[in-house]
Amino acid sequence: MPAPRQATRAARADGRPRTSSRSKREGILSTATAYFGEHGYEDTKWADVAAAVGIGSTALYHYFESKLHCLYVIMADALESFQSDFERITTENEDFLDALVLVLRSGYELTDQEVLRNRVLVAEQGLVGITRQSRREEEARALARARTRDLEFAWATFLVRGMEQGHIPKADARLLTRAVLGLYNSVWHWYRPRGTMGLEEVADFFIRRQLALLSLPAELAERTPEAD
Amino acid sequence: MPAPRQATRAARADGRPRTSSRSKREGILSTATAYFGEHGYEDTKWADVAAAVGIGSTALYHYFESKLHCLYVIMADALESFQSDFERITTENEDFLDALVLVLRSGYELTDQEVLRNRVLVAEQGLVGITRQSRREEEARALARARTRDLEFAWATFLVRGMEQGHIPKADARLLTRAVLGLYNSVWHWYRPRGTMGLEEVADFFIRRQLALLSLPAELAERTPEAD
Repeated sequence: MPAPRQATRAARADGRPRTSSRSKREGILSTATAYFGEHGYEDTKWADVAAAVGIGSTALYHYFESKLHCLYVIMADALESFQSDFERITTENEDFLDALVLVLRSGYELTDQEVLRNRVLVAEQGLVGITRQSRREEEARALARARTRDLEFAWATFLVRGMEQGHIPKADARLLTRAVLGLYNSVWHWYRPRGTMGLEEVADFFIRRQLALLSLPAELAERTPEAD
Repeated sequence: MPAPRQATRAARADGRPRTSSRSKREGILSTATAYFGEHGYEDTKWADVAAAVGIGSTALYHYFESKLHCLYVIMADALESFQSDFERITTENEDFLDALVLVLRSGYELTDQEVLRNRVLVAEQGLVGITRQSRREEEARALARARTRDLEFAWATFLVRGMEQGHIPKADARLLTRAVLGLYNSVWHWYRPRGTMGLEEVADFFIRRQLALLSLPAELAERTPEAD
């Protein structure tokens, strides 16, 4: 299987062999993300990831016990990044509608690598529901699962605030969260970097529909929040 | 791994060993759907499916070359069922809004087994994109892929009709199809039969949001089409 372009590019940008343990770990994560995101998790051989990073299987095991362990860490990292963006934006913007539009937009402001990470996250979310026997796998899985719930909870709490302030009609906040995030997630099932459609075009279309789910006018997508 | 309840129940309903080749094939498909839908495709052992159906590996191979081959057939069958419902409803109902509401409702009128099939379809849709070396796997994959495209094309054509008749605002029909189906598919990532929430409640909530994506009022969900 050919190495994904993303991984090749990352290696080139590095130039020389990595030495620190932290950067080696990051290298494995970004290469695995590229493989999983382009070829699919199931069709990626863990040995191919190791070869692309230039690491032996014993050294690889030091960082990740298995392909599955690595997958869970990628997912947990992606969810942490969503969560921190969400918290930063909703804390910095007191106005509910300002915050909402900025949060929705931030979901599409992604590098190619982040798009691939989203593809992995949505394609393999089913694997997060299943308990593992191995301690390291199970810890990473539990973390990814907890972060999924935290993000959903933060969204639901935020939407309740919008309901209480009269910006959006009252509805089951948990279902509404699932609808807004579900529509968002659906994009990464088909969108690929460097395809025929640009991410800005996709964002423009989908943010308007995410607003529609909340019974908000599409024009809100063009809202320019006041500077802090 | 315990046999899914669905499979156990199906076996009980049968009572005695199946004899016809056709019913044996159906038995494998329904058991595999129950396993994949409840435990996930990746975590299901093909040998467990064979054991639950009560068939040896040589006989199993006669029907399906592999777990993946069986998965593709389940997907192609599910898509065929969606497509035939879609065509029947849109042919029988000339009025665009009547047809739309009935098609949306039909998506949630499902047995537990059909819910599990939807779960399999959405959880593993990524595997449909990857070419296979084995002839039987590749044929089944190509069929599932073609049916996915046919269904999307039928939906887009239908939505264009709604735009031309002035029922819904003009928009990119392909993206709109992806949004409406993407929101629908998102349900099966979390909804499980016999959970805390009933399918009717989910349908009521999501049909209104699917209508919102099309800029249509939620009240349309209660529309009662004229008898033919």
